[in-house]
Amino acid sequence: MSDRIWKEKIIDIVGRENFQDSNESRFVYSYDATPNFQSLPDAVVCPRNTEEVSQIVRVCNEYLVPIVPRGSGTNLCAGTCPTKGGIVLLFSNMRSILEVDEENLTVTVQPGLITFDMIEEVEKRGLFYPPDPSSMKISTIGGNLMENSGGLRGLKYGVTRDYVLGLEVVLPNGAIIRTGGKLAKDVAGYDLTRLLVGSEGTLGIITEAILKLIPVPETTRTILAVYENIEDAANTVSKIIASRIIPSTLEFLDRSTIDVVEQFAKVGLPTDAEAILLIEQDGPLEVVKKDIDRIRELCIQMNAIRVDIAKSEEEAEGLRLARRSALSALARLKPTTILEDATVPRSEIAKMVRAINRIAKKYNVQICTFGHAGDGNLHPTCLTDARNQEELERVEKAFEEIFIEAINLGGTITGEHGVGEMKSPYLGLKLGETGINAMLSIKMAFDPNNIMNPGKMFAKDEKKRVTV
Amino acid sequence: MSDRIWKEKIIDIVGRENFQDSNESRFVYSYDATPNFQSLPDAVVCPRNTEEVSQIVRVCNEYLVPIVPRGSGTNLCAGTCPTKGGIVLLFSNMRSILEVDEENLTVTVQPGLITFDMIEEVEKRGLFYPPDPSSMKISTIGGNLMENSGGLRGLKYGVTRDYVLGLEVVLPNGAIIRTGGKLAKDVAGYDLTRLLVGSEGTLGIITEAILKLIPVPETTRTILAVYENIEDAANTVSKIIASRIIPSTLEFLDRSTIDVVEQFAKVGLPTDAEAILLIEQDGPLEVVKKDIDRIRELCIQMNAIRVDIAKSEEEAEGLRLARRSALSALARLKPTTILEDATVPRSEIAKMVRAINRIAKKYNVQICTFGHAGDGNLHPTCLTDARNQEELERVEKAFEEIFIEAINLGGTITGEHGVGEMKSPYLGLKLGETGINAMLSIKMAFDPNNIMNPGKMFAKDEKKRVTV
Repeated sequence: MSDRIWKEKIIDIVGRENFQDSNESRFVYSYDATPNFQSLPDAVVCPRNTEEVSQIVRVCNEYLVPIVPRGSGTNLCAGTCPTKGGIVLLFSNMRSILEVDEENLTVTVQPGLITFDMIEEVEKRGLFYPPDPSSMKISTIGGNLMENSGGLRGLKYGVTRDYVLGLEVVLPNGAIIRTGGKLAKDVAGYDLTRLLVGSEGTLGIITEAILKLIPVPETTRTILAVYENIEDAANTVSKIIASRIIPSTLEFLDRSTIDVVEQFAKVGLPTDAEAILLIEQDGPLEVVKKDIDRIRELCIQMNAIRVDIAKSEEEAEGLRLARRSALSALARLKPTTILEDATVPRSEIAKMVRAINRIAKKYNVQICTFGHAGDGNLHPTCLTDARNQEELERVEKAFEEIFIEAINLGGTITGEHGVGEMKSPYLGLKLGETGINAMLSIKMAFDPNNIMNPGKMFAKDEKKRVTV
Repeated sequence: MSDRIWKEKIIDIVGRENFQDSNESRFVYSYDATPNFQSLPDAVVCPRNTEEVSQIVRVCNEYLVPIVPRGSGTNLCAGTCPTKGGIVLLFSNMRSILEVDEENLTVTVQPGLITFDMIEEVEKRGLFYPPDPSSMKISTIGGNLMENSGGLRGLKYGVTRDYVLGLEVVLPNGAIIRTGGKLAKDVAGYDLTRLLVGSEGTLGIITEAILKLIPVPETTRTILAVYENIEDAANTVSKIIASRIIPSTLEFLDRSTIDVVEQFAKVGLPTDAEAILLIEQDGPLEVVKKDIDRIRELCIQMNAIRVDIAKSEEEAEGLRLARRSALSALARLKPTTILEDATVPRSEIAKMVRAINRIAKKYNVQICTFGHAGDGNLHPTCLTDARNQEELERVEKAFEEIFIEAINLGGTITGEHGVGEMKSPYLGLKLGETGINAMLSIKMAFDPNNIMNPGKMFAKDEKKRVTV
């Protein structure tokens, strides 16, 4: 009964054409890109502007209806699964570039905008937005902000957080606040901008963002280095950075990933190698040339058996595409693909890769590893079948051990994918009880009724990460 | 009476030699670099380690004793004035570099370390810590973290916040938490690291920090551009950025500041000019040369009457020193120097400088303006005499009008100096009631007894900024 009341109130706000609660539409938004998490929302709502978002939040607060803000659902932490039902909020009516300011080097956007569309638009004007999550052709800026998305260029350029200058946010009480501005510096009070970025929809709803742009790098060069030995590849990563070179991209693929990606993308990856590094440098031509020569030397010094410099932009783009398609390629092999995100100090990646292989063997599960080696951000990816309960339990145990190993090496349970529902049981490994309590106190201060994306980030009792 | 009890408990923790409550020592720590704010603490305490800090916080929570963490007191917002008494916490026993990690490019430090000492140490190893507040030879890292200090290199390199990878923090309840790590990426929960940085001692006490380093730029070149007209100087700033060049430093000095600085520093500044820009670029030699040539052209194009490229590092250092000594030089002229920090989008600096001059004239007060033009971060500095109550009232009104103007231009009340006690009455101008409420809810969640640096950031009733 009460369902009908709040639904009618929301329809009054957004109009019937922006409200759906058919079984079909509820089903479509009952899951995201994360395998094995599913839960039906009560409705799907598309507000047309910030004021409507605020009104919706007020209604949801009154009727205690959960709100799950959602971009394109490409996240890998069950961050947008409607765990507790409620409404899924879509931003299909709020996806404009509001302004490109070429004097202040900023772009002002609405949350529903596709990341890649924005990148293309600013690059036309010689401007550059560095964060490049692999999903950027599908993902939205709003989703990237909520998850503080990373990408391949994080090593040199940082992540989404580092490019957010200001936000418009609807808080869980319906209040609309504006943080920051087109400002290189602003210390007026606490850094709410960065508190909201990466808050996974649990503290508020971002309705507008001012993003920082930088000049497009003059040129880019791409190297492929091939190794017979994982350690050598990992040591090359440390060696490059310790030589005071910060490449724009420094990606690692292990043997099983290489095989699968090559079958999928056919760009000529060496399928007999144990590991490859995909390295890029960008910047002024003279500098890039010098850096690439030096990187090449260092790769050879660290026993690379082959070092190829891409001869054309097409060849480079092929290599990049191959790396970006790793998840899609792996996903073809088995019914269920679980991609993880353990991250360690970059000096520890050799140890971490070794540990992953040891753990996979111990639990007899198939794990392929690739990732942003320069950031210490690895994506061990398990190919499994969610219908095989016994195997899933082994997968579960293997990942728990991988997380513990990452923490022991000074790392974290998630470098760029977020906690969501999936990794919430493990958050305590990184933060301890005192750290979680500090975060929970912020959550409760902002959202006492726990209407904003409930069931995310903070742990449930059981440590089941994969549920069928 | 109860004073004696908590004092004895704190002496038990830190030892008598690390506790002072003589009138002399209380007087010494009753004020900071901000004119006209003074209040006596009850005691001055020097903990020896994190555990002692935690124990002190627990005692203070029990007896409701305010805690004011203090670096070297160089802040300009009355951020470390013991407004409500209590204890001043000094970190003279916690000032070590704990580790320089050349593989992960990090430095781990204690809060009492002098910023410049750390910079010197890492530069010996070819590493670079970009944040360079003008006070860096005196200021501590702990103070820089609490205030999220900026500096001259902020335009290209960002501010303190952008170089903090992890913190150890004692929360107001005495709990010790660790955030982040030697990690390029970490999205395990809310960004407590950046919430704590810039929190001005109101949310917790930083006891250790892992800072990010980058390779030292190969070379630096310095330009001095001289203008007959403030607008031309301001337009040059926009023109350089719009030409897709991001200099490492882009400083502005107006006529009155130039005069005073030249008398003080004697580096040959042109005292007949209306404005000068001090511009630096760093990086690989070829790139710096190209950028500097282009910047020179742009300055001339924007009507600079003279453009000098520093011929030697000594000459460049002289110019830098001149800029850094602006506050000291101005402070010699009148008994009271009030340096402000209004910040606008860089496209608006011409308008802002014009507004400052108009407002100074309107209220018949003497304001010299200099600052980080590339960041839109201006430091209008009023030379006055705190004993002249009538003049002070005019100063007060002038600054209020300057803040309102900055906000109207899309700016903020403070770019890098913080809110503290001094600017707390104006925070609402930037944030509105809803923004302040959001921040207050975090403050209350972390520190329900309001023991951490009370009387800072959040407004009192009256709007008196200057109190004698």
